[in-house]
Parts: sequence; C-alpha cells; structure tokens
Amino acid sequence: MTRDLKAPICVLGTGLIGGSLLRAATAAGYENWGYNRSEDGARAARADGFDVTSDLVAALTRAAESDALIVVAVPMPAVDHLLGTIAAYAPRCPLTDVVSVKGPVLAAVHRHGLAARYVGGHPMAGTSESGWAATFPELFRDAVWAVGVDEGTHVDPWRRVVRLALDCGSVVVPVVAAEHDRAVARISHLPHVLAEALAVSGASGGPLALGLAAGSFRDGTRVAGTAPDLVRAICEPNRAALLEVLEDTLTVLSAARDSLRDNGSLADLVTAGHDGRRDYETAERWAITDVRPGEHDWLEALRVAGQRGGVLTELP
Amino acid sequence: MTRDLKAPICVLGTGLIGGSLLRAATAAGYENWGYNRSEDGARAARADGFDVTSDLVAALTRAAESDALIVVAVPMPAVDHLLGTIAAYAPRCPLTDVVSVKGPVLAAVHRHGLAARYVGGHPMAGTSESGWAATFPELFRDAVWAVGVDEGTHVDPWRRVVRLALDCGSVVVPVVAAEHDRAVARISHLPHVLAEALAVSGASGGPLALGLAAGSFRDGTRVAGTAPDLVRAICEPNRAALLEVLEDTLTVLSAARDSLRDNGSLADLVTAGHDGRRDYETAERWAITDVRPGEHDWLEALRVAGQRGGVLTELP
Repeated sequence: MTRDLKAPICVLGTGLIGGSLLRAATAAGYENWGYNRSEDGARAARADGFDVTSDLVAALTRAAESDALIVVAVPMPAVDHLLGTIAAYAPRCPLTDVVSVKGPVLAAVHRHGLAARYVGGHPMAGTSESGWAATFPELFRDAVWAVGVDEGTHVDPWRRVVRLALDCGSVVVPVVAAEHDRAVARISHLPHVLAEALAVSGASGGPLALGLAAGSFRDGTRVAGTAPDLVRAICEPNRAALLEVLEDTLTVLSAARDSLRDNGSLADLVTAGHDGRRDYETAERWAITDVRPGEHDWLEALRVAGQRGGVLTELP
Repeated sequence: MTRDLKAPICVLGTGLIGGSLLRAATAAGYENWGYNRSEDGARAARADGFDVTSDLVAALTRAAESDALIVVAVPMPAVDHLLGTIAAYAPRCPLTDVVSVKGPVLAAVHRHGLAARYVGGHPMAGTSESGWAATFPELFRDAVWAVGVDEGTHVDPWRRVVRLALDCGSVVVPVVAAEHDRAVARISHLPHVLAEALAVSGASGGPLALGLAAGSFRDGTRVAGTAPDLVRAICEPNRAALLEVLEDTLTVLSAARDSLRDNGSLADLVTAGHDGRRDYETAERWAITDVRPGEHDWLEALRVAGQRGGVLTELP
C-alpha cells in the first residue's frame, strides 16, 4: 500500500487540533481539505489559503472519490452526527479521529457500521486556546500520538494513520481504547478537574489570596483557563474512567487530611507524590522495532509494547 | 530613622531564599553577612565571595554590635532553636523572617520575648530547587513580599523590613499573620497537596499513562518535584488553615464526582474554576499611598488595604 501513504486527507472540524493538522499535513506534503460547521471558521481558514468548506456533503463526496483518510476532529458531542453523514457519503474511506476519548468513539463507529476502516487516534497536544486563530503547524512536533490497536484493526488504514502522525512530527503510542481512556483520565482529565478545584479555592480567598499567588498557583490552575465547554467536552465523555480516578484521588486526599489532622504529617502523600513525579521525569520512551503489522498477533504485540512505554518512531 | 534604612542585615540560613537574599542585598548595597548550620553550605557561599559562617554566636554577636536587621531564613522546624539563640545574643536587634507560615513564627517570637522588634515577612518566590547552588539575586524581582502588620508592630523595624523587600525588587503586601496563613493555604500549600496527589495518580497508571502525559500533567505536578522534607516543612506548620482548605476542596471534588456520576456533568465545577482563574488573571494590584506609618490606626489601615489587593511600591 506504499502508494497510499501520502494519499489525501480530509479533516472534519478546523479548531485548534483539526486546523493545526491541516497546517501540519500541508507542510508534510499531503493533499488536504477540510470542513467546518461554522462558515465563519471555514472562511478564516480559507483566508489563510486552506481549502475548507462548510458543506459537509461536498467534503465527504470528494473524500469518497479520492480514497482520502477522513479525520474526525470535533468534540465528542458532535461525533455521532458526523459519523452518520460519513456512513451515508463516504463509508469506504479510511477513518480516524483526534477526539480525547476513544471508547465512546469506537462504540459510535461500530453503531454506524464504519469499524472495518477505522483506527482511533489522539494526539496528546493542545493549548488553552481554541479555534482556527490558535492553529499552528508545529503543534504535534515531538508530541505523543496515541493510535488504536483494538481487535479487528486492519493494517492498511492503520498504516495511513501512523504515517500521518509521524509526518506531523509525533511519535506513536499503540494502545487499545479502554486502556487509553483509563490512562488519559489520570494524566489529562484529572489535571483539568484539580486545576478547576484549585482555582475555585484560590478565588475563595479573595484579592489577598490571589495577590499573594505565585508560580505554584499559576501553573496549577493554567488549564482552568480553557473554555468551559471544551473542558466538559473533553472530560465528560470519559465518565467511567474519570469517576474511578476521582474516587482514588478523593481517597488519597482524605488520607492526607486525616494524617495531617491526627499526626500533623503529610509524609505519605508527599513521599508518594515525589516518587511519582520522579517516575514521570525519568520515564524513557523506547522504540518498538520488532513488530511487523499484519503478522500473527501484531495488534496484541503492539498493545503490550505500548503498555511498557514503547513508541513507534518510524512506519514499521 | 532614615540613617537605619541601609543598616546591615544578618541572614540566618543560606538556602534558596536566604542565600538569594544575601545576593540581592549585596546588589542593593547592603552590608551583609550570613550564618549556615552546615559548614559545607557556608563554604559554598564563601567560595562565591559571601561572608557566611557556621558559627551562629559569632554572626549574632556581630549583629548586636551593629544593630543589623536579623533575617530568619530556615524552615519552620529549625526556627525555635534560632530564636532561643537570638534571645541570648542579639535580643535588641530588629528581626524578621522569610518562613512560609506566619502564625507559628509569631507565637514563637512571643515565647522568646522578641516581639517588640519583630516584623514577619514572606517573599512569595521560590523554585523547586534548594540550597546555595540554586540561589540567584533576581529571585525577588517583581515578586510579592508579605510583611506583617500585626497588632503591636513597631514602626522602626517595620520600615527596615519593607525597605529591604522593596530594594530586592518586590512589592509589599501588608497582612496579619492569621490572614496570611489562611491565604497561603489556598494559593501555595493546596497547590503542593494537589500536585502530589496528581503525581500519585499519574504514576499509578504506569509507563503507558506517564508516556501519554503532556502539558497539563507536567504543569500540574511541577511542584511535586520539590524535596519532600521541604514540602512538609512548608505545609505542615500551617496545619489548621490547610485542613480547612482541604476540607473545602474535598467537598468541591466530591460534589463534582456526584454530578459526573449522576448527571454526566462537570458544569458547576468547570464554570466556577474558569471564573476563579479569570479572577486571578485579571486581579489588579493597586498602590497604597494614603497610609502614614506611625499615625493613628496605621496597622489596621494597611491590613484592610492589603485585603483589598493593595501593595506598597515605595517606602511610605
């Protein structure tokens, strides 16, 4: 399928992630076009020289004609509607997405009969800005891009998605949907929840507390500056995994509260937290080089490698 | 007391804050010397040209002879011992501190009979590094420096402390001990506690979760990289205020958990958090210009101004 590797891409949704993807794909030499629901957003993209329409059927018809890789780049609440239209106008195109949660997208893809050519994706990149104005082609440079290796994944669309991620400058972490969702609950959705709670607490202290706030508060609340609708669209679809992580965190914080109250000590929490941060700082990615897509058990082999910190740095 | 304004300073403890203060005071033209408990630390400072000894009595005797402003710059657990020695060798020197909590220091100062010339201080500056090697003179530049206006504060030492803070490049927030401690519980100690809890949760996800972690996790756990002993020495002495804030935060997070579980919604938390971060970003400091130290009710007038976001940008 080498001839397909730089086949065109069609990006649905031209906000921060989708728009930056159009820019990065252009820089990497991909023919590409996009769709945006709001004509204002589409016009802003066109003003910068990108081929973006607010006519979804037109974008999808063109994708079907040229076997483009379709990239769903809208928040979770808008995914179902898009998949329905894709099923009607471009059901045989390879399909991926950049949505922050994978289980619910995979389920929706199955409901719409699109599973055979679907491979989930999630670039771990973003800023607290949103919309076309915030897009830039280097957003994915040196980032990690989760790519699905769920049971039944086909090699051809999988290679197209991996190739796109690599061409945008990312490394690829192979992961199945449920494990992705549990992991991002810990390292992406919980940070949002804690940042919001910290911002609430600081503001409750009024001008004196906010005036005394320095680096720890500034960094700890940074992502609370993200648009509320976007935070909700990121976190709420991952309800089950986030609830589990929130319960764990309430347990950890309650134990710290008890220890501080009864013994004046935060030793257990602080020691464990410092160890955790050290694990994060010293975590080493290693390149997966021994798995050949399509061979026996390739999906499971990639899944296990991803769990152990392995990444793909080139197309296997 | 204008002649005293650049009178010498004697800094007890030459870690990140105390050592950086020696550097900043030197840059501002103050005669200064320091004490450090470990001879290794003192030697490191001397190697950089600073007059630092590990002989506490010698440092204090010199302070008493020259009416130096003594700055206590050790973690809370070491404060009591230092104050006992100050009471023995330099009881009439003006006295301040840079400890992260003010109520316990004020109480200890009273126990040692040193209250008449004491003014509490707390520069809101730091990094996750510690020790002499981490010191630099610009640490306090554009920072906020809390200075005590507790009942019974005398004008002369108060002016010396304010002048030092201003000469180091900070603005001064006037605040009483109890209100300071409640405020920093919200904007300094809670950020530490939440960062530790987030780091614990991330590490629990293993190499996969840590490998997918991006900006929100990195920023949210940054201060969990601080040495555990230092975090405990900062947070634990503020037990009462931190317990209150932790209870509030457990309530906020439990409500968010309930809402997510029962309604699939994080709306209340996310809206309130976004509002709080906006309050922080748009908080405006204003200069206090209408209070003359020593006049009737000057301490209360400064306290009220500090509560409302007022700062001193020059010596009144």
